[in-house]
Amino acid sequence: MVYVTRRERFNAAHRLFRNDWSDETNNEIFGKCSNPNWHGHNYELHVTVRGKVSTETGFVVNLKDLSRILKTKIVDKVDHKNLNLEVEFLKGMIISSENLAKAFWREIEHDIKLLGAELHCVKVTETENNYVEYFGE
Amino acid sequence: MVYVTRRERFNAAHRLFRNDWSDETNNEIFGKCSNPNWHGHNYELHVTVRGKVSTETGFVVNLKDLSRILKTKIVDKVDHKNLNLEVEFLKGMIISSENLAKAFWREIEHDIKLLGAELHCVKVTETENNYVEYFGE
Amino acid sequence: MVYVTRRERFNAAHRLFRNDWSDETNNEIFGKCSNPNWHGHNYELHVTVRGKVSTETGFVVNLKDLSRILKTKIVDKVDHKNLNLEVEFLKGMIISSENLAKAFWREIEHDIKLLGAELHCVKVTETENNYVEYFGE
Amino acid sequence: MVYVTRRERFNAAHRLFRNDWSDETNNEIFGKCSNPNWHGHNYELHVTVRGKVSTETGFVVNLKDLSRILKTKIVDKVDHKNLNLEVEFLKGMIISSENLAKAFWREIEHDIKLLGAELHCVKVTETENNYVEYFGE
Amino acid sequence: MVYVTRRERFNAAHRLFRNDWSDETNNEIFGKCSNPNWHGHNYELHVTVRGKVSTETGFVVNLKDLSRILKTKIVDKVDHKNLNLEVEFLKGMIISSENLAKAFWREIEHDIKLLGAELHCVKVTETENNYVEYFGE
Amino acid sequence: MVYVTRRERFNAAHRLFRNDWSDETNNEIFGKCSNPNWHGHNYELHVTVRGKVSTETGFVVNLKDLSRILKTKIVDKVDHKNLNLEVEFLKGMIISSENLAKAFWREIEHDIKLLGAELHCVKVTETENNYVEYFGE
Repeated sequence: MVYVTRRERFNAAHRLFRNDWSDETNNEIFGKCSNPNWHGHNYELHVTVRGKVSTETGFVVNLKDLSRILKTKIVDKVDHKNLNLEVEFLKGMIISSENLAKAFWREIEHDIKLLGAELHCVKVTETENNYVEYFGE
Repeated sequence: MVYVTRRERFNAAHRLFRNDWSDETNNEIFGKCSNPNWHGHNYELHVTVRGKVSTETGFVVNLKDLSRILKTKIVDKVDHKNLNLEVEFLKGMIISSENLAKAFWREIEHDIKLLGAELHCVKVTETENNYVEYFGE
Repeated sequence: MVYVTRRERFNAAHRLFRNDWSDETNNEIFGKCSNPNWHGHNYELHVTVRGKVSTETGFVVNLKDLSRILKTKIVDKVDHKNLNLEVEFLKGMIISSENLAKAFWREIEHDIKLLGAELHCVKVTETENNYVEYFGE
Repeated sequence: MVYVTRRERFNAAHRLFRNDWSDETNNEIFGKCSNPNWHGHNYELHVTVRGKVSTETGFVVNLKDLSRILKTKIVDKVDHKNLNLEVEFLKGMIISSENLAKAFWREIEHDIKLLGAELHCVKVTETENNYVEYFGE
Repeated sequence: MVYVTRRERFNAAHRLFRNDWSDETNNEIFGKCSNPNWHGHNYELHVTVRGKVSTETGFVVNLKDLSRILKTKIVDKVDHKNLNLEVEFLKGMIISSENLAKAFWREIEHDIKLLGAELHCVKVTETENNYVEYFGE
Repeated sequence: MVYVTRRERFNAAHRLFRNDWSDETNNEIFGKCSNPNWHGHNYELHVTVRGKVSTETGFVVNLKDLSRILKTKIVDKVDHKNLNLEVEFLKGMIISSENLAKAFWREIEHDIKLLGAELHCVKVTETENNYVEYFGE
């Protein structure tokens, strides 16, 4: 078993809020992250898959394939987008890094399996001081 | 003469567009950066001042003072904000990194002078691949 | 289960030595790190907690709360300090990164639990080439 | 149990190819990484060992010893080398990061054990976007 | 005048040597960098251009244009290549970072001018410890 | 003219204070940096030299020579040391980054000249947020 990680990046706008909460409550819980006019980040996405190393290729997965999945299933849909308004698979969610990691996992899990590997970790880095990791359970 | 640099960071939303251009033209020139629903960045701001080293303190400027100026004059006004909509000193501008650097320069130049130093460079980093520097002329 | 990490930083002086060893032995085992006049580091602290993502907030923990615990229980007590001389909870220890990680764990474990999450990992980075991780057992 | 990681770096040339495949197949699977004239990387190697913290030294292992093993068993043999042609313990392999991680593990596992610790992870970083980790099984 | 920098990356093999020198002399001057079997690097290229900020676009240059020039004139020709053997515009040179910076300058200077800006600096980073800058004279 | 930069690192203890000032004044001006029990940093030193590129070697200077000068004249004397107490060429100074940069310049200027190059810049990085540069005048 070897673990292979690919990093991708995207820039997006978001805000943290619940529309069933008052502005005061949103501000109390989410602080400046609830700004109604949005803010944004240079997100980093690290996706780790695991599997046996193929004796034929020396690879767990061909990184071209892994990168293509991440681009078509995630990056193309979130890069330079408003994560609250424009991303079908994020609709109705609070756009926290925790929920992003879980949603990204769902979007790619099946395709990773088709590559013959197992999705191990989705890591979402929001700033140099904050990141989350999701391992599928 | 020694040059002293302080780094600050802020997260903000923006878009590149002109409202006197059609959507097609905005898209042709600014591409995905013109998305009407905004996107955002983890901006880095590096401000460099220069001056003589005080024999009394060993400092060109006290970094506490430099940092306070950057926070009150810039970071507090742009962090977790929409740069197009919410920042008085950016009103009416195209929110490119070039224009940010020049606007930030204007906001702090006077206060740096009051510290007894000279503003040398304002650097704005938008992504790990793109940054601009403005030297005041 | 999602894992959330917060990075904090502090600058401190320390030395590695045992006062029941001769200078020769201290030097043989700890090398230049045993310099009696101290040396220091820009330490990085990464604290990872894990828990369920709240459907109410989208958070495992509110990062404001996590950061406040790290600041009051650790950073305020070690930043710009001599780790051998001035930190109550490090008294009598060899100030290795291993012992720092374990001591930091003890200082915050209870407070993390009160947040409704579980402390997962304390990582202490001494230089860009050396770091340690402690998982509580 | 504490986990201790040491980073080392080396610069080397390599290519990905099988000499029992046609140029077309090599190119189809390995792309530009199969260039017969080689390309190269600034590799980073992170080696993590785990063990009990010695009450005598405060260490899991003395980093001088860990670093010496990494240098003599790996870095001295691969730095500024052609990984396909010049490294005895890589002979006959496809020089993927996956295979590097597994080969490096084999080269140091015994020596780490003699230090009184257990080898936990060998991580090989090929670029800022790609890395692999091997945990020994 | 604002200065705009774009970073690009490429991975390549090279060696430092003169074929009119003996192996001993090559080794004495270039050390392990003269290894006849090559070694390689993850090179970083930072290209800085300067110019007036267009009141129409807020740009000195459109980064899409700058990036396209760097890709077609430099990166496509050197990425995953052997810099000594495969790059027409480097033929006959000692492949030091100094000579790379000067050669890259020549390849792009004219195209940058056509963008309406002035080439200011070409920076080539070979490792995290070594880099060179060329300003055109 | 090409500019060549070499990075070196050292870890050291220091404090900012004047013994002709009261504790109150030291604290007012230098804050927690004046802690009598010291604190410390992972300092980075970037030294830039400039000169013509030798047609014989492709180098401005041989980095082996530049690195040797930095190690013998600076790093060996400051690494794992107390900068206030143990460094002959820093005696009597306020150990600010500004004064370090100027003192390091004096220590190496002559030796750089003997290499046939000109010292251009000494940069001292104290933390990821603060650095100073000295150009010799």
